[in-house]
Amino acid sequence: MVALLLANGPNLNLLGTREPDVYGAATLDDVVGAVRAHAADRDVEVRDVQSNHEGDLLEAIHEARSWADGLVINPGGWTHTSVALRDAIAASGLPAVEVHLSNVHAREPFRHTSVTAGACVGVVAGFGVASYLLGVDALLGHLEG
Amino acid sequence: MVALLLANGPNLNLLGTREPDVYGAATLDDVVGAVRAHAADRDVEVRDVQSNHEGDLLEAIHEARSWADGLVINPGGWTHTSVALRDAIAASGLPAVEVHLSNVHAREPFRHTSVTAGACVGVVAGFGVASYLLGVDALLGHLEG
Amino acid sequence: MVALLLANGPNLNLLGTREPDVYGAATLDDVVGAVRAHAADRDVEVRDVQSNHEGDLLEAIHEARSWADGLVINPGGWTHTSVALRDAIAASGLPAVEVHLSNVHAREPFRHTSVTAGACVGVVAGFGVASYLLGVDALLGHLEG
Amino acid sequence: MVALLLANGPNLNLLGTREPDVYGAATLDDVVGAVRAHAADRDVEVRDVQSNHEGDLLEAIHEARSWADGLVINPGGWTHTSVALRDAIAASGLPAVEVHLSNVHAREPFRHTSVTAGACVGVVAGFGVASYLLGVDALLGHLEG
Amino acid sequence: MVALLLANGPNLNLLGTREPDVYGAATLDDVVGAVRAHAADRDVEVRDVQSNHEGDLLEAIHEARSWADGLVINPGGWTHTSVALRDAIAASGLPAVEVHLSNVHAREPFRHTSVTAGACVGVVAGFGVASYLLGVDALLGHLEG
Amino acid sequence: MVALLLANGPNLNLLGTREPDVYGAATLDDVVGAVRAHAADRDVEVRDVQSNHEGDLLEAIHEARSWADGLVINPGGWTHTSVALRDAIAASGLPAVEVHLSNVHAREPFRHTSVTAGACVGVVAGFGVASYLLGVDALLGHLEG
Amino acid sequence: MVALLLANGPNLNLLGTREPDVYGAATLDDVVGAVRAHAADRDVEVRDVQSNHEGDLLEAIHEARSWADGLVINPGGWTHTSVALRDAIAASGLPAVEVHLSNVHAREPFRHTSVTAGACVGVVAGFGVASYLLGVDALLGHLEG
Amino acid sequence: MVALLLANGPNLNLLGTREPDVYGAATLDDVVGAVRAHAADRDVEVRDVQSNHEGDLLEAIHEARSWADGLVINPGGWTHTSVALRDAIAASGLPAVEVHLSNVHAREPFRHTSVTAGACVGVVAGFGVASYLLGVDALLGHLEG
Amino acid sequence: MVALLLANGPNLNLLGTREPDVYGAATLDDVVGAVRAHAADRDVEVRDVQSNHEGDLLEAIHEARSWADGLVINPGGWTHTSVALRDAIAASGLPAVEVHLSNVHAREPFRHTSVTAGACVGVVAGFGVASYLLGVDALLGHLEG
Amino acid sequence: MVALLLANGPNLNLLGTREPDVYGAATLDDVVGAVRAHAADRDVEVRDVQSNHEGDLLEAIHEARSWADGLVINPGGWTHTSVALRDAIAASGLPAVEVHLSNVHAREPFRHTSVTAGACVGVVAGFGVASYLLGVDALLGHLEG
Amino acid sequence: MVALLLANGPNLNLLGTREPDVYGAATLDDVVGAVRAHAADRDVEVRDVQSNHEGDLLEAIHEARSWADGLVINPGGWTHTSVALRDAIAASGLPAVEVHLSNVHAREPFRHTSVTAGACVGVVAGFGVASYLLGVDALLGHLEG
Amino acid sequence: MVALLLANGPNLNLLGTREPDVYGAATLDDVVGAVRAHAADRDVEVRDVQSNHEGDLLEAIHEARSWADGLVINPGGWTHTSVALRDAIAASGLPAVEVHLSNVHAREPFRHTSVTAGACVGVVAGFGVASYLLGVDALLGHLEG
Repeated sequence: MVALLLANGPNLNLLGTREPDVYGAATLDDVVGAVRAHAADRDVEVRDVQSNHEGDLLEAIHEARSWADGLVINPGGWTHTSVALRDAIAASGLPAVEVHLSNVHAREPFRHTSVTAGACVGVVAGFGVASYLLGVDALLGHLEG
Repeated sequence: MVALLLANGPNLNLLGTREPDVYGAATLDDVVGAVRAHAADRDVEVRDVQSNHEGDLLEAIHEARSWADGLVINPGGWTHTSVALRDAIAASGLPAVEVHLSNVHAREPFRHTSVTAGACVGVVAGFGVASYLLGVDALLGHLEG
Repeated sequence: MVALLLANGPNLNLLGTREPDVYGAATLDDVVGAVRAHAADRDVEVRDVQSNHEGDLLEAIHEARSWADGLVINPGGWTHTSVALRDAIAASGLPAVEVHLSNVHAREPFRHTSVTAGACVGVVAGFGVASYLLGVDALLGHLEG
Repeated sequence: MVALLLANGPNLNLLGTREPDVYGAATLDDVVGAVRAHAADRDVEVRDVQSNHEGDLLEAIHEARSWADGLVINPGGWTHTSVALRDAIAASGLPAVEVHLSNVHAREPFRHTSVTAGACVGVVAGFGVASYLLGVDALLGHLEG
Repeated sequence: MVALLLANGPNLNLLGTREPDVYGAATLDDVVGAVRAHAADRDVEVRDVQSNHEGDLLEAIHEARSWADGLVINPGGWTHTSVALRDAIAASGLPAVEVHLSNVHAREPFRHTSVTAGACVGVVAGFGVASYLLGVDALLGHLEG
Repeated sequence: MVALLLANGPNLNLLGTREPDVYGAATLDDVVGAVRAHAADRDVEVRDVQSNHEGDLLEAIHEARSWADGLVINPGGWTHTSVALRDAIAASGLPAVEVHLSNVHAREPFRHTSVTAGACVGVVAGFGVASYLLGVDALLGHLEG
Repeated sequence: MVALLLANGPNLNLLGTREPDVYGAATLDDVVGAVRAHAADRDVEVRDVQSNHEGDLLEAIHEARSWADGLVINPGGWTHTSVALRDAIAASGLPAVEVHLSNVHAREPFRHTSVTAGACVGVVAGFGVASYLLGVDALLGHLEG
Repeated sequence: MVALLLANGPNLNLLGTREPDVYGAATLDDVVGAVRAHAADRDVEVRDVQSNHEGDLLEAIHEARSWADGLVINPGGWTHTSVALRDAIAASGLPAVEVHLSNVHAREPFRHTSVTAGACVGVVAGFGVASYLLGVDALLGHLEG
Repeated sequence: MVALLLANGPNLNLLGTREPDVYGAATLDDVVGAVRAHAADRDVEVRDVQSNHEGDLLEAIHEARSWADGLVINPGGWTHTSVALRDAIAASGLPAVEVHLSNVHAREPFRHTSVTAGACVGVVAGFGVASYLLGVDALLGHLEG
Repeated sequence: MVALLLANGPNLNLLGTREPDVYGAATLDDVVGAVRAHAADRDVEVRDVQSNHEGDLLEAIHEARSWADGLVINPGGWTHTSVALRDAIAASGLPAVEVHLSNVHAREPFRHTSVTAGACVGVVAGFGVASYLLGVDALLGHLEG
Repeated sequence: MVALLLANGPNLNLLGTREPDVYGAATLDDVVGAVRAHAADRDVEVRDVQSNHEGDLLEAIHEARSWADGLVINPGGWTHTSVALRDAIAASGLPAVEVHLSNVHAREPFRHTSVTAGACVGVVAGFGVASYLLGVDALLGHLEG
Repeated sequence: MVALLLANGPNLNLLGTREPDVYGAATLDDVVGAVRAHAADRDVEVRDVQSNHEGDLLEAIHEARSWADGLVINPGGWTHTSVALRDAIAASGLPAVEVHLSNVHAREPFRHTSVTAGACVGVVAGFGVASYLLGVDALLGHLEG
């Protein structure tokens, strides 16, 4: 059975309660629930982590090496700044898919580049919660391919 | 019934015949066939265009205003250079999803930015032919959302 | 009798039908008609071309060498990217006036620079259809000056 | 009856007496006279100011709020440096047209960008004295539009 | 008794009459009155100057060397461009506090940098009229410290 | 009764014990005590947090949404690097005032820009401990304004 | 028998008729004739294409895969802008030599870099028509080497 | 007796288990053991910390002020991004030596500059585990010098 | 008899009274006196102007066209920002020599570039009052040459 | 009889003995011999110099003014850094052809620009030893042209 | 027996006689003597070269291929500018260690990057003469490793 | 008696024989003779050196420490590239004046910056041979000042 780590970065615990015009109305529980349901339909196990602490995310990725087949990750604000997170993804040796709720290419210029995406298989951005579900499908397709 | 324009930019007619390590072994016919089959399962009509002529792609997008509900587009090399294509997408008023076979963030620096993505709903990149199928799903989700 | 080429670049065939807040409500036919009437009052012949194909515009400029006294050109999105168009204007040896409906200096940064303007006599931007009429007057003044 | 402020910035008092190859042979009086005649034909009142003192130009623009319908301004060298002038134009709430005798885009690189144009309706550049007359027409067109 | 120069740069004479959404509804008289009252409560004398002429402000700062203990200055648009003003503040040897009504960091990019701040003790920005009162307190604290 | 979160970022626990020429002799306890006393005089409740862990600061800001009316924050070294902190401030929906002990504009170039200030109401920098007290006053003024 | 595609980009059809001080007096027919004669001496077949349409050039390169042993290409203005042309050269798998009539390193800065040269074997620039003949020799040498 | 803090940053806990071609086959325990043995030979006490949490590393450095004579630190990915870590090193007042396993100058461009090195005595990079041992010797030499 | 305008820009009226380590102990009267004596030895008339008002300096340069043979100018802080001053110098048609008391190349980076120097014959910088005397000699040599 | 200077810059004496995958297996003697034979067939005299000393190369170029008709030069690493070499070529008044063994456009970014090429007639790069022979032919063609 | 080349670049012959606050009080003889003694203890032969002539250093590195096992090099000012030196190190095929007396990361920005380090095994910087001794140890460790 | 080193960099041995429109008709002997005569009038001894070898110039500057009171140097093309020369001037401890025949600010952009000037007392540029004489006077003034 395939197992995935769903990792969410800083401030994503606030989803649904603030700035719904940018990030949508779904809460993080809604997102995680939707991912779990979507994965269950495909016979895939999901463990999830959200953290506002970079170190927690690094370690969750480190530990995933022992049980997971891949990562679906929304690095939030660290997308644009964290070499440490990029290094953790690369060091894990796990295929990773970077997802974003909003279309980062249509926001402020400092969100147009990604430090972390270079260590991933690919990126899905701009479709709200669906970005996550598409990201799961993309990862499963990659694992099968 | 939902109708989509599948638009492919320059050099994509060569798919499957050259550089399979970068772009995979599927031909453009394979890609279009896979998108059609995927769309048919979802009761969606697909018309497709591939052109090495920027003007043809602009005009296909212009014409799509009269019959299509959205675009799935792989702008190829024009991703990084064509303001005209960005303007055509914006002018069409149609929701668009930009797709790429390869993970552009892990290639040469001049492929890390997209001129066209700012006029799209979102982007799917890095999953080979599956990027297109995920792009169709993303667009359908957006149209329903 | 003075003869002018009025050249319009990509997406300008859509004028009046999309984004009237940016580009105004006049159609391309309205624009061309207004230029023709304005020119006729000044005893000037106008031939016009619009194309979404860069090559067509280059060739129309090439051919204008045999009959025209000058160019009024709205290069659209190619303003910011086309060295080939700049070279065509320079190679034609014809005085050219670059016109823009909108004030490009007040839009996105990638519209603040013009590759083509360096090969022109001058620029008129920001006055809607009147930019074209002012452009004709400017060119006539230049031819007389 | 429409009333306009014609504002000329630093060094323009020297017009016609120096560098005629760049700026033409007309003096500032010639320019102002030409603008007045051109405006009178259109039943428009013109008051003019030229100053080499940034503060004088700022205050003339401030005062124009009580009597003028718009500005035609050649900011001269302040075009490229004066945030204060840009702020004054914006604060006046009056529509402004920036004019230049020469084609600034074909001169030194530091003349390729305009700080002030972002607060204007548009720009006319490169046609000698005709730039002013075109600017008046452009402004009148804007006021009517 | 402590004495301060309150210096306001270009366009600030228009305060309260234009763009109240950016700069608030208080006039310059209101601002100066508020500063005077605030200072009087602290037994501080205030002399004020506003000018749209850079030279006037430079000379007011020069003269302040003979009577003032410090400066509270809103350089307006000169904040971002005037090396001469920076030099005047440094040359005066007086401690200065730079104040801004709006949060310049959240406006256009060319307002994100300050040429003048490097010659000041510190900066207060973004609090409307209160920026001035906080600036007075900051300067008094510095003089006592 | 108004309630504020006073948030201090990395290394600020060392205040008063190191580099007093840059940061002054007051300890963090002195700073917090001074803010509390200053706030109490104004009938304002203060809760404070200092952390060297970015995640702790993010979460303290998240939680402040349920009880606080605003933030006074010294982000320390994160000022110049943390998109996550900027996003947290924006996501909290609380008005924030950024404060700095030193005049960051007069130090190393990498301290001249602030990633976080764009999500704040304003900035007070350069006045030592008084920057905090001025920041409280600024925030209260904003809440009343 | 070795067969080569001689490809000329935009505006090169005007050769010899305009700007002879930059590009020389030879027409495109002269250039093609000289290349054919030079190649015939070496028992090499030449097919040629000139186009002002990027797509035509891309497709001529695509088709050359079925009959040609290599390319000699003067990309004209697309040298500096066309990722699509670079991709076409790379995708063709054919060895290519980039040639320029003028010494691009001694002209405007935007002509100092080549987007397309990175996909070629090498470059010959600055020798007028002889650049083409040298380019043929260079390509033949490469094919033999 | 001299006492040193050996500090390792993010992802270094994975040493020896991943990407041995870049970082070598030694585990973090191997590295720490080698440093301890090397130090013991020189009669030096070593306490070590590795953390994926920036805050933990900051605090370990803060605490080292009470017992250590210096730092040997491999900041990992934070080398290139963390102003907070640079500030902690500077604030500690302890001499520090920055070490890297790989030659960062021969890797991706974003690894060519160091934010933290400016607060250190010096740098040793590129020698695998030996970089640490050389770093200890360098620090001891500095303490004696 | 040769006649020169000696022009001094903003803050130079403070010479000798502030920052003698940077600008020396000589007052502006000393400087002007030294220039006059130096010029008298060479049978040269000197008229001088110092202003903190950009417009005054522009007009003094304009007027110098009627009586002077050249300019010696220390533009002070305007060196780095004033296109208007550069234009005035160019428009005057008079040969000008730019002088600086300090070596601007060895001060802050924003003093390393000169907007005005491009319109001058040459520059003398770094020799204190002697820069002025050397500047006079340089100008006389140029007039004779 | 035509006479040429063949000049080779730093490290080219090592040709053939190191890094044959980049520079080929031919030694410098092989290269010089091939150039001599090629030139002899064309009745051209060749004198050659290789130096790792910039000054030697400058002086060889200076001296060539008395006997040579042109230069074929491979500046090696100085291509990208030596203004002095560029000045020497320009000062010699001799037509020069710059040659490179490898395609510098396909190597590290710091090899994509040439300081020296702006002073040459043209460039041949990417064809191994043949670059030299083509360079000789290019130079002869230029001398005849 | 292992043999090393100790290479010192420009101005290092002045060591100990000038700027001891930056470079220390040891002369070049002291440095070489210390390296020799340190190497002798490890049964290593050292030959040394110092030159202010780039070509001499290149050739010493070239010749070292026939007798040396590695290089310890302080490139001095060439560190930041010499592509030729980088090429020589790479072409030698010898492992090299770059050393610096001062911590270049804490000096002027133009000393923060190294052109030569990319061709070396690693770097030791900031420890005065000890940088050389550590560099020898690092090189020996590398040769053994 | 004061003694000066007059140092000329690469290609200056060609003065007067090439490009007189840029550098004038005086030969290097003329320049040196003029400097000697000018210095003799002031009772100053001059020794001169010209070299196309960077190392020779470095060493002449090193040696000048034992007999000279200052340097007048025209670094030629090294002005813009040589950190080693800058370091030599700084290391010599001698006051230096940088001179240029032409106004480098009015030539190509890569001549607008000087690496070496930061280590000099000042610069004289643009006055032909007179730049040297002015440079001598400047240096003497500095020595007396």
